[in-house]
Amino acid sequence: MKIARPALERLSILCTLLQELEEAGEERISSTTLGRLMGIPPHTIRKDISNLDGTIGGGGGYQIAVLRQRVQEQLGLDKNRRVCIVGLGRLGSALINYGGFEKLGYNFVAGFDRNINKIELLRTDIPLYPSYEIVEVVQQKKIEIGVLAVPAEAAQQTADRLIEGGVKGIINFAPVVLQNKKKDVFVRNIFVAGELNTLSALITQAERGHG
Amino acid sequence: MKIARPALERLSILCTLLQELEEAGEERISSTTLGRLMGIPPHTIRKDISNLDGTIGGGGGYQIAVLRQRVQEQLGLDKNRRVCIVGLGRLGSALINYGGFEKLGYNFVAGFDRNINKIELLRTDIPLYPSYEIVEVVQQKKIEIGVLAVPAEAAQQTADRLIEGGVKGIINFAPVVLQNKKKDVFVRNIFVAGELNTLSALITQAERGHG
Repeated sequence: MKIARPALERLSILCTLLQELEEAGEERISSTTLGRLMGIPPHTIRKDISNLDGTIGGGGGYQIAVLRQRVQEQLGLDKNRRVCIVGLGRLGSALINYGGFEKLGYNFVAGFDRNINKIELLRTDIPLYPSYEIVEVVQQKKIEIGVLAVPAEAAQQTADRLIEGGVKGIINFAPVVLQNKKKDVFVRNIFVAGELNTLSALITQAERGHG
Repeated sequence: MKIARPALERLSILCTLLQELEEAGEERISSTTLGRLMGIPPHTIRKDISNLDGTIGGGGGYQIAVLRQRVQEQLGLDKNRRVCIVGLGRLGSALINYGGFEKLGYNFVAGFDRNINKIELLRTDIPLYPSYEIVEVVQQKKIEIGVLAVPAEAAQQTADRLIEGGVKGIINFAPVVLQNKKKDVFVRNIFVAGELNTLSALITQAERGHG
């Protein structure tokens, strides 16, 4: 069954929340508490969950482990994905050394940079390659997701090469919106510096009395 | 002059884009090219920029350095902000060692964790403190922005302490929506794992023929 985009986005965040609650030792949770944690009405939570096949939970709230597993299965998040990072500057290096995505099923199997020195100097267990090998390596390793951590001016052509190699999705950290010629490749943007700037600009407006 | 939220968000991202183009040696850019890079119509770009005081650019496009400076001034991004990170797990450690925010004017002046061992073991030049000192240290150091990298179940009470200490804004990486009792504290969420999950779920739907 197809789940509409907004529900799919909420369920994807719900899944990470449930994993954290489970790790913290929580066992059950009500839709009211989930709604408060996620900042959405409890009936929306219940409706999103009703999109999933099978009956889950009931009067006494949801069993966290059961709900987490059901969301993962239905969204396909129980399947491991092969991921590469392009751009091994500060952000890319931080991401490749972060290691927090492995337990979510995202396996980093390659890193790329146009600068050969960076490839030789960066200490990591993940195999690194020069950027001109993107298409070939993505094909060979059947990489499904590309993480773009390159400068803005290189983002589009790098995305094009990832797509040519066969990735199905891109997480884009560069402050540009990628032109996506193949409609079956999905892109999600994470503009960290942009969020910091927005926050700072909002603070400034409030300080200037325009809050 | 007050800038509406959507324009302010676009200008905040524009600012990071202009900085990267400038670093790449670019000098001039048209609203058409900016529109393509940002995925918005050129007339929206021109309208956003017309929000800024003074005349900038014209027929031959914008001078990147001039436009970047004007956006920074008007949004208050030329002002350095004092920032702390709470939660020195994988994400928090990666953020504190990243170093890429300094050049944007975000100065990390403190890190916190509830686990004293982490504070003693983490190698960084930034002073680290136990979490029970948040209110005091935020007050003393006049910290304006708190970066939340704590587990979901600790996010709300940590945010409350940051707000009690006097921060004006929070970047929240925990997969929860914070209840904000003081309306003059701004919150921006960055759900990295949620974005990866959404991407993976979209790929799964396409694979299953629901794309």
